[in-house]
Amino acid sequence: MPHAMLSTLTDFDPHTGLSGARPSIRRHLSKMQNMFADAEAYAAARAQGDPVVYEFYDMGVPHSEKDVAYGTSITYPGKIGREYYMTKGHFHTVIDTAEVYYCLRGRGFMMMESPEGKVEWRELTRGTAVYVPGRYAHRSINVSATEPLITFFAFPGHAGHDYGTIETRGFRKLVVEENGAPAVVDNPRWGG
Amino acid sequence: MPHAMLSTLTDFDPHTGLSGARPSIRRHLSKMQNMFADAEAYAAARAQGDPVVYEFYDMGVPHSEKDVAYGTSITYPGKIGREYYMTKGHFHTVIDTAEVYYCLRGRGFMMMESPEGKVEWRELTRGTAVYVPGRYAHRSINVSATEPLITFFAFPGHAGHDYGTIETRGFRKLVVEENGAPAVVDNPRWGG
Repeated sequence: MPHAMLSTLTDFDPHTGLSGARPSIRRHLSKMQNMFADAEAYAAARAQGDPVVYEFYDMGVPHSEKDVAYGTSITYPGKIGREYYMTKGHFHTVIDTAEVYYCLRGRGFMMMESPEGKVEWRELTRGTAVYVPGRYAHRSINVSATEPLITFFAFPGHAGHDYGTIETRGFRKLVVEENGAPAVVDNPRWGG
Repeated sequence: MPHAMLSTLTDFDPHTGLSGARPSIRRHLSKMQNMFADAEAYAAARAQGDPVVYEFYDMGVPHSEKDVAYGTSITYPGKIGREYYMTKGHFHTVIDTAEVYYCLRGRGFMMMESPEGKVEWRELTRGTAVYVPGRYAHRSINVSATEPLITFFAFPGHAGHDYGTIETRGFRKLVVEENGAPAVVDNPRWGG
């Protein structure tokens, strides 16, 4: 008889996005060198300290297509120069696996791009779900000056993460503040 | 070059659980004959009308293990006799596929049971995620007298739904009100 796993119950505070169940994975600014367009502003921010830009959870779900990896992602408010705080972004290792995000709090963008250069972005506010289809790298961007951007995410257990491609090449588009509002612009440092 | 799907953005009101994007699937009381233990109370409730017991969304995600089916589920407050309003409950057709639920509002239970008779239940409140492992039939039960139980759910696109097994046999356990509080009791009509 197949072994039946146990169910799990996990808290994710809808206001902070944080869980008491296990440590989150925290990305400090120092781990995002060369990811923001303005190198001078990045250096200046690093001289002030090493804040957490975003954090998220890996719940340790089996890496199987029959399981669903899930958790919360919290991107904090902030900017490097004119560019808003964001996640590194990633492709899935099994590149054509999808991911869904439900926004619990805040205001931001989901930036998506395919290897062939198709670019899409969607605006996230509380109560919106964005479906990221397979083949799209995706990144969360927080455009609020005060609130964290909090999402609940779910993706196939076997999807895996490919961070390297984006770290090397960047996304084709950036989200920056222009006249007090977010604007999507070309990435001058894109290395495709 | 493989065709890249478009992303989608969908609203799911976190207070009502409802979306303006497409019609929900609504389960009226008349579609739940023989699912509640108290047949007399069911007949009396039906004589009063045919309320919606619960509703949920099918977003039409491809039935592939690379996709993630998602949406909200809203179970309304109410009782049939002492038994709380609940969803029909189902196994997945690909029986060992999992599902995750994140509770957006309300108070309830996720009742789970495996074909071999292993039973588990978890209490849902706002901000809790329950992971239903593969092989477990699962049902949402609303134990609040006033509020809907609202969850955001996600499961592998190829999982499918098997409602028939539960419709025929029922769950081994019921959740009923005893002295003003929810209690888990044996199902006197279980047909295993």
